[in-house]
Amino acid sequence: MSSTSIEPIQVAQEATTAPSLLALFHDVRQHSLHITEALRPEDQTVQTMPDVSPTKWHLAHTSWFFETFILREFVAHYRPFDPEYEYLFNSYYNGIGAQYPRGKRGLMTRPTLDEVHAYRRHIDGAIAFELSQSDDLPDWADLLVLGCHHEQQHQELMQTDIKHVLSYNSRGGVVEVLTDDTRTAKAADWVAHPGGLVEIGAEDSSGFHFDNEGPRHKVWLEPFRLCTNLVTNGDYMAFIQDGGYTRPELWLSEGWAAVQQEQWGAPLYWDSAPGQKLGLEAPVMHVSFLEADAYARWAGKRLPLEAEWEVLASAPQLMGMHGKVWQWTNSAYAPYPRYRPASGAVGEYNGKFMNSQMVLRGSSMATPTGHARDTYRNFFYSKDRWQFSGIRLAEYQ
Amino acid sequence: MSSTSIEPIQVAQEATTAPSLLALFHDVRQHSLHITEALRPEDQTVQTMPDVSPTKWHLAHTSWFFETFILREFVAHYRPFDPEYEYLFNSYYNGIGAQYPRGKRGLMTRPTLDEVHAYRRHIDGAIAFELSQSDDLPDWADLLVLGCHHEQQHQELMQTDIKHVLSYNSRGGVVEVLTDDTRTAKAADWVAHPGGLVEIGAEDSSGFHFDNEGPRHKVWLEPFRLCTNLVTNGDYMAFIQDGGYTRPELWLSEGWAAVQQEQWGAPLYWDSAPGQKLGLEAPVMHVSFLEADAYARWAGKRLPLEAEWEVLASAPQLMGMHGKVWQWTNSAYAPYPRYRPASGAVGEYNGKFMNSQMVLRGSSMATPTGHARDTYRNFFYSKDRWQFSGIRLAEYQ
Amino acid sequence: MSSTSIEPIQVAQEATTAPSLLALFHDVRQHSLHITEALRPEDQTVQTMPDVSPTKWHLAHTSWFFETFILREFVAHYRPFDPEYEYLFNSYYNGIGAQYPRGKRGLMTRPTLDEVHAYRRHIDGAIAFELSQSDDLPDWADLLVLGCHHEQQHQELMQTDIKHVLSYNSRGGVVEVLTDDTRTAKAADWVAHPGGLVEIGAEDSSGFHFDNEGPRHKVWLEPFRLCTNLVTNGDYMAFIQDGGYTRPELWLSEGWAAVQQEQWGAPLYWDSAPGQKLGLEAPVMHVSFLEADAYARWAGKRLPLEAEWEVLASAPQLMGMHGKVWQWTNSAYAPYPRYRPASGAVGEYNGKFMNSQMVLRGSSMATPTGHARDTYRNFFYSKDRWQFSGIRLAEYQ
Amino acid sequence: MSSTSIEPIQVAQEATTAPSLLALFHDVRQHSLHITEALRPEDQTVQTMPDVSPTKWHLAHTSWFFETFILREFVAHYRPFDPEYEYLFNSYYNGIGAQYPRGKRGLMTRPTLDEVHAYRRHIDGAIAFELSQSDDLPDWADLLVLGCHHEQQHQELMQTDIKHVLSYNSRGGVVEVLTDDTRTAKAADWVAHPGGLVEIGAEDSSGFHFDNEGPRHKVWLEPFRLCTNLVTNGDYMAFIQDGGYTRPELWLSEGWAAVQQEQWGAPLYWDSAPGQKLGLEAPVMHVSFLEADAYARWAGKRLPLEAEWEVLASAPQLMGMHGKVWQWTNSAYAPYPRYRPASGAVGEYNGKFMNSQMVLRGSSMATPTGHARDTYRNFFYSKDRWQFSGIRLAEYQ
Repeated sequence: MSSTSIEPIQVAQEATTAPSLLALFHDVRQHSLHITEALRPEDQTVQTMPDVSPTKWHLAHTSWFFETFILREFVAHYRPFDPEYEYLFNSYYNGIGAQYPRGKRGLMTRPTLDEVHAYRRHIDGAIAFELSQSDDLPDWADLLVLGCHHEQQHQELMQTDIKHVLSYNSRGGVVEVLTDDTRTAKAADWVAHPGGLVEIGAEDSSGFHFDNEGPRHKVWLEPFRLCTNLVTNGDYMAFIQDGGYTRPELWLSEGWAAVQQEQWGAPLYWDSAPGQKLGLEAPVMHVSFLEADAYARWAGKRLPLEAEWEVLASAPQLMGMHGKVWQWTNSAYAPYPRYRPASGAVGEYNGKFMNSQMVLRGSSMATPTGHARDTYRNFFYSKDRWQFSGIRLAEYQ
Repeated sequence: MSSTSIEPIQVAQEATTAPSLLALFHDVRQHSLHITEALRPEDQTVQTMPDVSPTKWHLAHTSWFFETFILREFVAHYRPFDPEYEYLFNSYYNGIGAQYPRGKRGLMTRPTLDEVHAYRRHIDGAIAFELSQSDDLPDWADLLVLGCHHEQQHQELMQTDIKHVLSYNSRGGVVEVLTDDTRTAKAADWVAHPGGLVEIGAEDSSGFHFDNEGPRHKVWLEPFRLCTNLVTNGDYMAFIQDGGYTRPELWLSEGWAAVQQEQWGAPLYWDSAPGQKLGLEAPVMHVSFLEADAYARWAGKRLPLEAEWEVLASAPQLMGMHGKVWQWTNSAYAPYPRYRPASGAVGEYNGKFMNSQMVLRGSSMATPTGHARDTYRNFFYSKDRWQFSGIRLAEYQ
Repeated sequence: MSSTSIEPIQVAQEATTAPSLLALFHDVRQHSLHITEALRPEDQTVQTMPDVSPTKWHLAHTSWFFETFILREFVAHYRPFDPEYEYLFNSYYNGIGAQYPRGKRGLMTRPTLDEVHAYRRHIDGAIAFELSQSDDLPDWADLLVLGCHHEQQHQELMQTDIKHVLSYNSRGGVVEVLTDDTRTAKAADWVAHPGGLVEIGAEDSSGFHFDNEGPRHKVWLEPFRLCTNLVTNGDYMAFIQDGGYTRPELWLSEGWAAVQQEQWGAPLYWDSAPGQKLGLEAPVMHVSFLEADAYARWAGKRLPLEAEWEVLASAPQLMGMHGKVWQWTNSAYAPYPRYRPASGAVGEYNGKFMNSQMVLRGSSMATPTGHARDTYRNFFYSKDRWQFSGIRLAEYQ
Repeated sequence: MSSTSIEPIQVAQEATTAPSLLALFHDVRQHSLHITEALRPEDQTVQTMPDVSPTKWHLAHTSWFFETFILREFVAHYRPFDPEYEYLFNSYYNGIGAQYPRGKRGLMTRPTLDEVHAYRRHIDGAIAFELSQSDDLPDWADLLVLGCHHEQQHQELMQTDIKHVLSYNSRGGVVEVLTDDTRTAKAADWVAHPGGLVEIGAEDSSGFHFDNEGPRHKVWLEPFRLCTNLVTNGDYMAFIQDGGYTRPELWLSEGWAAVQQEQWGAPLYWDSAPGQKLGLEAPVMHVSFLEADAYARWAGKRLPLEAEWEVLASAPQLMGMHGKVWQWTNSAYAPYPRYRPASGAVGEYNGKFMNSQMVLRGSSMATPTGHARDTYRNFFYSKDRWQFSGIRLAEYQ
């Protein structure tokens, strides 16, 4: 799975007819298989930590999403592929029912990968059949688009999780995992914003977005600046060489505890592939919020707020906010004013995670292209490092 | 330690002379002993969970604060009471040096309580001597005031921690712990605020405040309302009786996990004193943020933002914000714009905890009276329940 | 993998020529593949508890044994299949070097099953080539016989481990696992022995045996009786129905703790295949020593000592000691008088486990036929239940 | 609590009248208080690991034993001191009822030490009153003698537990704990025994002994020799200096695992009192079975069997078997032939611990003198090091 072999498809925002919707669905589904092509059944079975899910599970769960929220709900006489899958591949939807324990997904040897592939084909066929019956969009068109975006999220997670799984093989590099060796063409610079009353968040009338991206609302900002470049491996190396991981005054309390308990001394994966050459001009990635925050303090700067990030990203001022690494912000993940989750079990998608986590903005090289939005709110815990997460600096003027 | 026997002293905001500073210091120090009067040495030794510290440790640590930041820094020829105490009673100041492991404070049998009392007297005498040498305020007057406020914080913590320790004795009620059986005189009502651009945070020029309360800054708010009353035990009982702890749709994901793993079914301590009569009109307390949030969702409301709370508390609109229970907000604990911690080790006081925790506002019946401020930002983890923490509801207009 | 499909081969005790040794080697190696035939790569990758190893690992480790102790030691110019395998597939031989952590064997996705099969073929070929060069036995003939017995031990472990792995699939019975539904033809009876001075243990001059089976030595026994039958599922059901798992007076202290902590209420697997019919006359299996001991106490009997078991098994008195289930004894695993482990790393095979474990005697339906011996000493911890372990009662006369 | 200040009393084996029984009881009870004289309430409250009990708990539990098995059973109208104590101070007698969790004994601040002392006086008075009513021995005389021996066992445990608790104070030596600096007068020598059929175990007709010491029975022994001296600190130092803790070939598998996981590099407490001078000629103590076994292997010897130890100890051949350190044997703790525990709850005293532990023989300097017997079977887990446990070597002739 080399980075060059991935050609993420573009999710059409405007699938206004059933055939165009089917084309979207088809492209998204194919891409998941494309990502996993080079992996053996053994690679797709294992779970190396509770946060990681086996590839096989991702492939099944994304199918379960279409089956549960569309086929079972809207298609008369639909026969589930296997009644037990409702339980096995439910991630966290209490509204649907009990779930197979998350931490034990790697102990599930059956269904096998072949059986999961058959499950996927069953779902693909059932959806395709329904969409072929009329040119008009079905009632559940929005849910299908949501399911496509959901699968795209899991396409990125599959790649982060595979990278983690393969790193546990004592011999690295059995499968080429996603890295970035692009060079940063231009010198770092700063773009200023005068602050004041701004608006962020997705309009209801805009194209597809997750519920947590709205409602659009006002925020007051102090005058600030964002750096035009991402922090690079070379920049981060200077932090390490300056004793970054040995100086408690640079760290949040949780960060210093993690440094000691987890024996952090570099971003995740730096040590695991000793032969691999680190591109000094490529963006640093696989750092936690705690490391990003320590780096910023060391540099005499800070992490941006999510509103600062969004207001500059959506202005014609700043390029390169997307497609490299997700960027930690110093904003806790919380509901926007008057936020309301969707009704029903699908309302559990985003809302119930709105505490204790931090927002990341942008997108990474593992994000399917059409999946990125300026209003997108990704979120992980302060300690998480296995995502394609990096750093962009900010400061007050 | 009955609630009536506690008469918290008033910290003079304006200790403008050495004698007035000494009076302040004297009163604060005496109050700590007053709180622990009814406790036996055994009660003051034990640690029932890592968050809890033994009373004996609190009594020593608050003395250590004065010794470390004032006597050792500013008083020539000062001889530490015991060189080992620097290590034993350092809470979390990496700038000072290594710390005795927090989770093992309850395994420290020596120094004994008597020895800790002797340590306190040693510190009291040394500070008093220095303050008696001149009517002028010494260079370290600000640090002494900080140390007094620090000790007041620990006075509240001592009471929450003692309550937890005594709850582990199979027989409850050996020592009367702090409860509130006041009746809510008036019916619940709502006070509205039009929103817009407001200012919150402490002015530099105002009286004493912790560094995390400033700088004062602008925030944009949507029109909102706060409830004039705190949620009562009776209100919360209705939530329980309506299946509140059995309905996942009411809970954040972390909340539902805690309900199942920790077997939560009521606020902390409701079960531990079966004979104790629960005052239905008294404010509910010992609920976590996760429970407060679930209650608010059940009630069709939400928790206030800290800016909403402060702007109404500081207006002449809403009474009773203080002195009963701390009130969970839906604001994550984060630095205000342009926040800078104090320089030196004392800068670790607040700043390094600014992630993953939630802000509580107000004060409780255990808070020394003069210690409460409208700008005060208390903070704990979403799961914490052993503080005197309760609920005030909010809603958008 | 049905029980009928397994036809264990007979290890020739008298492989006196190189060709006969090759035939033995060939048969043992083939049998391992035969056992795993019905399993998919996913089934062979997973580890459900630290005691369990993935099938794939067993297949590789048994090959590693021949490579490490024979090919690398005795064959000039032998080129290891893969230098990293020395580390990956070393079970516990410190004399060879460091070992991949036992509890993480299930996180190793590479080498894949196909690669492990290639490794096996490489070893098979190398050994076969060496044995074909002369009719005389090579210097390492004894080690090859040891390696064959070693692989036979793992053939049984593969079956116990596979049974455990498949039990974690929510749907039982995807692969038929080893069970015994034979009927106990005759009524239980007791065979008496007068006690006195007896001899047990393997003679040096007898056929193959592990080092822990000797030296042969004298033991004094009190007059005793052994039951001719194994305890059956029906017998054990009576124990359960009489409240066996709820009466602390029947249990060793560790047993009662396990009942409460592990929620034991029946032998392992009784609950996991609800549809499966329990043969009431078949021997109970998958009980721990702690359960076997509690059952014996309930029955007013006791478990045999290993010397009692052996002296009756090797006399022409008692039939049916082998081939159903291993039988827990009340003898701790300890060295016989003047026991000396073999020299070199292979000396770690048995000796270093001689504390804290209990001896089991006999053999099970999963034991390759020629692998069973009356002097054989199997050993597991008191709590272990995933082996094919059952109960034979004893009493003093 | 210096070693010289302890003058253990002699339990009269022949208390044939009520007054002599009372004198025995009085002496034993007084000695417990004598042992704890130098300790503060804080020292007596804390529990540093689950195996350790607070001194306060020991003082109460030994009183509970008399109350539960004598006063409540045999004394009409006896009023328990406190009904809750039945639960709080029951160690492990399921026949009596539920028990306060062992691992939480250190969280019990109430009853205070003063209250426990009052409890002791209450029990002392009640027993004394009953014994004063007649010169004849009461029906429960045997239970009272058992209770006295039980308290003597706890007198030794109090000292091992106190030593552990005080070792957690960062400053060692606040209270002088039991050490031995006696010199070994004579050079090590070996005493031979021809083996053959011997008898061990306590006769029913002999004086007081615990049920696990009988019945007396025959054992066959090979010719062997025991060392006349205990292994000294100097001997053990040579083992360490020869890389004893770094050579896996010297260790049982569990031993090597403990060395790595627990970071063992010397006997317990060697590091904790750096100023303390180690008497090189004093017996090594605070070693686990695993260390004792590794030392013996390094020395080219082995640990004795318990029968070997007893047969030489009870012959007029070998002096110095008692009063220094308990000596690990290579015998697992198991019932002697035809062993039957006493009936009723007191039958749980010994029998239910008969698996997974190793026998120690002899007695230590902490053992009350009259409490030692050649037939005494002490038992602990292979990893336990906090007892006064040492090493005597053996070998086959």
